[in-house]
Amino acid sequence: MMEAQEQGYFTEANSAEVVISRNSAAKDERLKAVMAVIVRKLHEAVKEIEPTPDEWIKAIRFLTETGQMCNEWRQEFILLSDVTGVSMLVDAINNRKPSGASESTVLGPFHVANAPALPMGANICLDHKGEDMIIHGRILDTGGKPVAGALLDVWQANDEGFYDVQQKGIQPDFNLRGRFVTGEDGRYWFRAVKPKFYPIPDDGPVGRLLRALGRHPHRPAHLHFILSADGFETLTTHIFDPDDPYINSDAVFGVKESLLADFQSVDDAERAKELDFKSPFWEVDYDFVLARPRS
Amino acid sequence: MMEAQEQGYFTEANSAEVVISRNSAAKDERLKAVMAVIVRKLHEAVKEIEPTPDEWIKAIRFLTETGQMCNEWRQEFILLSDVTGVSMLVDAINNRKPSGASESTVLGPFHVANAPALPMGANICLDHKGEDMIIHGRILDTGGKPVAGALLDVWQANDEGFYDVQQKGIQPDFNLRGRFVTGEDGRYWFRAVKPKFYPIPDDGPVGRLLRALGRHPHRPAHLHFILSADGFETLTTHIFDPDDPYINSDAVFGVKESLLADFQSVDDAERAKELDFKSPFWEVDYDFVLARPRS
Repeated sequence: MMEAQEQGYFTEANSAEVVISRNSAAKDERLKAVMAVIVRKLHEAVKEIEPTPDEWIKAIRFLTETGQMCNEWRQEFILLSDVTGVSMLVDAINNRKPSGASESTVLGPFHVANAPALPMGANICLDHKGEDMIIHGRILDTGGKPVAGALLDVWQANDEGFYDVQQKGIQPDFNLRGRFVTGEDGRYWFRAVKPKFYPIPDDGPVGRLLRALGRHPHRPAHLHFILSADGFETLTTHIFDPDDPYINSDAVFGVKESLLADFQSVDDAERAKELDFKSPFWEVDYDFVLARPRS
Repeated sequence: MMEAQEQGYFTEANSAEVVISRNSAAKDERLKAVMAVIVRKLHEAVKEIEPTPDEWIKAIRFLTETGQMCNEWRQEFILLSDVTGVSMLVDAINNRKPSGASESTVLGPFHVANAPALPMGANICLDHKGEDMIIHGRILDTGGKPVAGALLDVWQANDEGFYDVQQKGIQPDFNLRGRFVTGEDGRYWFRAVKPKFYPIPDDGPVGRLLRALGRHPHRPAHLHFILSADGFETLTTHIFDPDDPYINSDAVFGVKESLLADFQSVDDAERAKELDFKSPFWEVDYDFVLARPRS
């Protein structure tokens, strides 16, 4: 406790230093360093905000309710991290990419392992509801060469904004999910439906916070991808519809400029027939660029 | 949403600005200002810590467990606020005193309204367990004049470190609690027992954090006071035993130098007899100075 003695007792001026020095006996050096930053920033925030006792207890209650909203299938603290931009910042820090490589975005809660392995061109929309869409492109390395044997794992919401796992018994199992493997040309293509924007769960403390902040809970329409290949970093990302009404106000800040795809409306009866689509349909062409692991 | 447009999409560099500008439609100006500080400090912390995805999810789980530990009689987020020095900092900010006035410290969870109104000299220790102690002093204004009609509300743990409300059926109701009103001389005196240090509840996430940080959960021995009088600011404070083994390492940072009282051992059979004490007993002399409300 020598450090506490040296620092003296708690005062408004030295508050963070006293607390940090008290943590100096932590055996885990990383924990000690992390807690030092947390304590310092927390005290800076309190000194800048100067909360009243009533505001402080409101914050305590908000955090308590956020914890108590969590259960097996609802993680309200992740939602809080999402709507404050923390999840995207952690993603950005852990996925800095070399120039030219595709950017990452958040995984989200709806990925399912072991989606069906499908041949190129398969239609992942099993109930044929919504506006038909074909997506194609290439998986490349940063030198522009095709990546063969790349695994593309895709999942998306339907045209009402729901994932299959949110509508069990309404949507078929594994609806709008699939895994595809590229050949020598690095090309991929599959059929789907145009996704729709959807709200994050907003019936809890985080939803109340969003409303108080004058914010809506919506995520703009997107498709999720995890792209992996031997010798490359795995890429977890989305592509977004730039014409979505919420494209500039994603509730979780997942949109990056490079992830805006071009969703073209195609009115071509012959191509539609070949694809077993109705005309007009939607077409997206988007190339992904994978990075080599940093040495 | 013009601000979001102007700020552009989320990047690691502009992360906090994008989130803050998104909150610009909040109707409550105070909430908007508070959230701006929280978001800025949170993003600064994340950028300095650079948490791995695994560390981020550990933090999410810790906060979730902290919320889920709370119930009607346990507030784990207040404990977290306490052990990080936040509670004391909020107290300090809200109770800046003019020079010469007694300092405040945290209220703690064990205050009970409507403790018995007692005459000066009463013994608040109803079960006569522990080492006898007499406490006396004056309640003064900052000019050194006695404050008449001041209400002194006192409560303390027993010689085993437990409050009555923690040992219902073991300690008598209202044991070691009382309310006294000063006369013209501003003097107070009452009899009690020497309090003992005690741990904050440490069987939850906050206790685990303290252990990981190499910290004990103890609060040094103290008596709690709320002092109120017409024309003065109400003072919530403690006095501490400077010889307590944990006096330099209070788990919740409640100790201030000015709140160290002098606990004297008195070996005087005659005075002991007058007080209905055993000799030796403890004697504390401590004056409180109340501040006028700031204009």
